[in-house]
Amino acid sequence: MFDLDKYTSFIEAQIKDIQTPKKPANLYDPFRYLLNIGGKRIRPILTLLGAELFGLEKEKVIGQALSVEIFHNFTLVHDDIMDEAPLRRNSKTVHEKWNQNVAILSGDVMLIKAYQQLCRIEPERLSEALLLFNNTAIEVCEGQQLDMDFETRDNVTIDEYIEMIRLKTSVLLGSALQLGSIVAQADKVDQENLFAFGQNIGIAFQIQDDILDLYADPEKFGKQVGGDVISNKKTILHLTAEANATIEQNEVLKQLQKETNIEFKIKRTRELFDQLDVKKTCKDKMDAYSKKAMTSLDAINVNEDQKENLIQLAAYLMLREV
Amino acid sequence: MFDLDKYTSFIEAQIKDIQTPKKPANLYDPFRYLLNIGGKRIRPILTLLGAELFGLEKEKVIGQALSVEIFHNFTLVHDDIMDEAPLRRNSKTVHEKWNQNVAILSGDVMLIKAYQQLCRIEPERLSEALLLFNNTAIEVCEGQQLDMDFETRDNVTIDEYIEMIRLKTSVLLGSALQLGSIVAQADKVDQENLFAFGQNIGIAFQIQDDILDLYADPEKFGKQVGGDVISNKKTILHLTAEANATIEQNEVLKQLQKETNIEFKIKRTRELFDQLDVKKTCKDKMDAYSKKAMTSLDAINVNEDQKENLIQLAAYLMLREV
Repeated sequence: MFDLDKYTSFIEAQIKDIQTPKKPANLYDPFRYLLNIGGKRIRPILTLLGAELFGLEKEKVIGQALSVEIFHNFTLVHDDIMDEAPLRRNSKTVHEKWNQNVAILSGDVMLIKAYQQLCRIEPERLSEALLLFNNTAIEVCEGQQLDMDFETRDNVTIDEYIEMIRLKTSVLLGSALQLGSIVAQADKVDQENLFAFGQNIGIAFQIQDDILDLYADPEKFGKQVGGDVISNKKTILHLTAEANATIEQNEVLKQLQKETNIEFKIKRTRELFDQLDVKKTCKDKMDAYSKKAMTSLDAINVNEDQKENLIQLAAYLMLREV
Repeated sequence: MFDLDKYTSFIEAQIKDIQTPKKPANLYDPFRYLLNIGGKRIRPILTLLGAELFGLEKEKVIGQALSVEIFHNFTLVHDDIMDEAPLRRNSKTVHEKWNQNVAILSGDVMLIKAYQQLCRIEPERLSEALLLFNNTAIEVCEGQQLDMDFETRDNVTIDEYIEMIRLKTSVLLGSALQLGSIVAQADKVDQENLFAFGQNIGIAFQIQDDILDLYADPEKFGKQVGGDVISNKKTILHLTAEANATIEQNEVLKQLQKETNIEFKIKRTRELFDQLDVKKTCKDKMDAYSKKAMTSLDAINVNEDQKENLIQLAAYLMLREV
């Protein structure tokens, strides 16, 4: 049985071991703060599993796993400035706790620290790892830029949206896995299948995220159900509704965006989405990406037993209710 | 005779050759804009000269030279946000021309692009180049943080100031040279002497920058003489004055910081500095770093003729009047 908590604890211990200078405090305190406010550590765990899939012990890919986690935290600290987000995992964001300049610069240093960790690798594998890491990092920036661009555009298509979430969040999951497999010297085709598995699970996960925002059980969800509706976010639910709506229904959708009675706004939006079969359409899309992911995993040329942890992690990610 | 313009043109041509995607425009337009608004391109030229010193043609270190230049531009775009600077090389800064979020994210992508260029190297030299580049990048961030911290501190020592400028601006000059020498497979001791040469020239240059701000010929200077005095910047002139002043003179210095008549403020500050022999003290410090730099260059184990370009570039940097 796959023990997620055991892997999370392993990563937590490695994070605690990272040595950072005391000074300048405004540069390194935010680094320590953000890295230590928790999370499931899914990305670095993917790197461990990507190595184990090809028979390499997780202890051999700690640098690459930490690299992925530190890179992810770099994106969080800069994205939170751009989104003016006050909270991250129920704690103050870096720019709120310190200030914006501290958040910019400590984010920069995190990105460099991610490269430092990545370099804890046999020199013969360094080029290959860097090629992947650089491309991934650039794609993540492109995804974030597209996400910001979409805020002021009113003609975003579903395909564009999927491409945005692929870049912004999913390539990093694929790359996290592939980095582990690079260190394990996996065959190139297996590496690519592993990347595709991670990327497609990532897209499915993100679609599910959008669905849960409106359709989660309020008892279990832990935050406001319908948050995306309130903030008029162009989620895949919204874009699917737009694409399937009549001119009249699109007019109603537009009016609802201006609605100030939040309860009414969420209730009416949901009714409209239900008329348009939005939830099912999105769920089908999500399932298609999930299935694609599993097909890629199937194709990887290792013993089926070796894939068990990845299958269970994927199930854990896709069967969540919150 | 060393032909700086020839080297600058060489770098300009290489910069024009950099391929960047058209989209997302808000991510890559600032990159192209900032990289193309000019400058002497001293840093990448140092990388070319660092290679040529050990007999390697400049064509072999283009990636590393561009890496240094792109990294430098990354620091400019983020520093300009932090300093709220409206202009850079007489053009609008990125956050002014676009907006702050665009400046943060396009800066991030520049840092990653710098790594991509750095990787254009024989795999056997990649580890060594990255080790230097990562450490340098982190030190530059530390220097920027110290610079910001100093703004709100009133007990900064001259040694702390020198350490700040060493980190913020000088290590990059040393590293630019050393990167060239790494690709040229120079001996480790020679590499370290070359780094020390660049770093100490950098410190001398920065001290000279502070001196010129108040003592340049206004006819030639091209910007307001005394800009640092007007903005109460803690330059090495100011810190030297503070260190040598009597209690009464320090009181005058403090009062002058609040002075609103700019002409009077600059005139009186200069008089006070003259009484305290500030210019000469700083000039001596500058000369000491210059000398240290030349001692390191002397120690490098190559034919003296090979050093001619570096000697002339150093002279060019140190004999400027603006």
